[in-house]
Amino acid sequence: MIRFELIKKHRHSRARLGKLITPHGEIDTPIFMPVGTQATVKALTSDEVKTCGAQILLGNTYHLYLRPGHHTIQKLEGLHKFMNWSGPILTDSGGFQVFSLNNLAKINEEGANFKSHLDGSSHLLTPELSIQIQQALGSDIAMVLDEPAPHDADKKVALESLERSARWAQRCKDVPQRKGQSLFGIVQGGMHTALRRESVERTTEIGFPGYAIGGLSVGEEKSLMLEMADFTAPLLPEHAPRYLMGVGPPEDLMACTQMGIDMFDCVMPTRNARNGTLFTSRGKVNIKNSMYKEDASPLDPECSCETCQNYSRAYLRHLFMADEILAYRLNTLHNVAFFLNWMERMRTAIRDDQPIDWTYPQEKINLG
Amino acid sequence: MIRFELIKKHRHSRARLGKLITPHGEIDTPIFMPVGTQATVKALTSDEVKTCGAQILLGNTYHLYLRPGHHTIQKLEGLHKFMNWSGPILTDSGGFQVFSLNNLAKINEEGANFKSHLDGSSHLLTPELSIQIQQALGSDIAMVLDEPAPHDADKKVALESLERSARWAQRCKDVPQRKGQSLFGIVQGGMHTALRRESVERTTEIGFPGYAIGGLSVGEEKSLMLEMADFTAPLLPEHAPRYLMGVGPPEDLMACTQMGIDMFDCVMPTRNARNGTLFTSRGKVNIKNSMYKEDASPLDPECSCETCQNYSRAYLRHLFMADEILAYRLNTLHNVAFFLNWMERMRTAIRDDQPIDWTYPQEKINLG
Repeated sequence: MIRFELIKKHRHSRARLGKLITPHGEIDTPIFMPVGTQATVKALTSDEVKTCGAQILLGNTYHLYLRPGHHTIQKLEGLHKFMNWSGPILTDSGGFQVFSLNNLAKINEEGANFKSHLDGSSHLLTPELSIQIQQALGSDIAMVLDEPAPHDADKKVALESLERSARWAQRCKDVPQRKGQSLFGIVQGGMHTALRRESVERTTEIGFPGYAIGGLSVGEEKSLMLEMADFTAPLLPEHAPRYLMGVGPPEDLMACTQMGIDMFDCVMPTRNARNGTLFTSRGKVNIKNSMYKEDASPLDPECSCETCQNYSRAYLRHLFMADEILAYRLNTLHNVAFFLNWMERMRTAIRDDQPIDWTYPQEKINLG
Repeated sequence: MIRFELIKKHRHSRARLGKLITPHGEIDTPIFMPVGTQATVKALTSDEVKTCGAQILLGNTYHLYLRPGHHTIQKLEGLHKFMNWSGPILTDSGGFQVFSLNNLAKINEEGANFKSHLDGSSHLLTPELSIQIQQALGSDIAMVLDEPAPHDADKKVALESLERSARWAQRCKDVPQRKGQSLFGIVQGGMHTALRRESVERTTEIGFPGYAIGGLSVGEEKSLMLEMADFTAPLLPEHAPRYLMGVGPPEDLMACTQMGIDMFDCVMPTRNARNGTLFTSRGKVNIKNSMYKEDASPLDPECSCETCQNYSRAYLRHLFMADEILAYRLNTLHNVAFFLNWMERMRTAIRDDQPIDWTYPQEKINLG
């Protein structure tokens, strides 16, 4: 089981400094969780992810259920051992991928019928199966299966989805727990504050050791996402960790940390790395830009990651233009390190009661 | 400049133990050189290649000339710094890729006209340009530009190619040398022993600090390759290093080491890694095989590489089936380590005057 210690509150915002104690180690919050979709943070070894500063990884139940299969991972003594990661792991419920990778997924009260994106085979993901898969994977934190409403859902649709999510949450909780695994609830309610409030009430009534805010960052305007997170976060129990799912760019991590969110995950650092978009202390850059062709400087002179310590912008650009595997590695290594350092910088500010008053440009920049 | 010390001869074969001293460090021979085509041994960092036991890398002049361009690498202080490899580097002449990647390459006395495989632009690779590129790259050992004959060339064609190669070799030698760089000659002569002998005479007459055997492993039967190497190697000066270009699988490295070859290079360990073919102490395996789906054993229990120390066959299979970048990394890391350990095992046998009497199966095997 997990335990959450609220160490201190920030003087300048609603940000919180905490410690989340799990069977596989302690996590300093607020924290960013790199995403290890298919039992690997894409392009990196688990050792490297650790060197980047990762304290907890996210594993995708949907992907691991389909390949190699949760029974296979269970026979191999669980996801930690399988991927050689000894730290904490949080698994999602699989629901998000069912809906985002399957336009034809059909939901009824029992669960979500979907076809595998790999071979078209038919599957039914129920709340119970989601938990069974997560138990087989052996994660430290499991998530309830929920049904997120589309970002433009009207109040009626969002309410139905909220109510089904609440019933599914109870079914997830009713599955006998795996020893050592904790189950987090998820708040839904679309873009409707009244429904968000209702979902908080229903989810906390069931009762979980941690709560996620779901159904955000799913296509809505950024300002609306921030408004919903800002409204919902303070409604959640103070002494439980708060996890904002699927967020986000550095500026959103900064804004939402100040709302009192403790945990984040996003594929942005890893996916953008593979597209050649790299995060630096001055802003996002496009490493393909010809201005870096003969640039001998490190990508980010303020970064101490292996990429910035050993390689030039010119080399990173060359590798990317030549479609070399090493490009994806070095880019990912840097971006993950950047996101983790970004969170550490905020933790330091909270600890020292310094304002989190720096900014991060949303648009790409050119390095001089 | 390089210096070659012949340390001892093997009691049981013509194998030799040597030391090649270069401006960037010493190399124990016989040695295998991993290929760093585009300024990276595909999928690995230079640090990892070193951890695998690599003492010298090969860089491809053709690829680096086209992208990012040798002038760019020169401005960035050379290939060593560009790719963060502090050990010795040997560069090829670019000729092999000109011919193998360009069906339309046209050769005349001046050089080889070819079109870039990247953008179709026209280029003329002369002996002088090849050396200039290699000087700009700053390799420790440069190779002369030669014109290999097709493996089925008749004696007349092979002789013409041999004679042109000899004239080009002289032109390469006539280019003022870069301080610290050594130039190796290359023996041609197709599959004709008389011509191989003549090429040795003409090449040694020009005089180089090291000699390669070229034009082998280009499509001929393996037995013919071995016959030509076996014939040619002892004709070469005893006190200069002998380099068999483009060879080869473990069994050929073993056979040719016993003929007195000191240096080898081949894309086999890196390319096969990306195809899922892994070299183990028992033989080559196909990691895709479903028999490894739940196999918790390390790939090769006798191997001490990072892949075998940290991951199971089941995980390697999963990563490969899921097309994860980490699959190419871990596979390459292991294969390169295997090839380098293979050479070390032979060096130990030569040193201890033990016979090199083990075998390596040519066909793929299944691990039990």
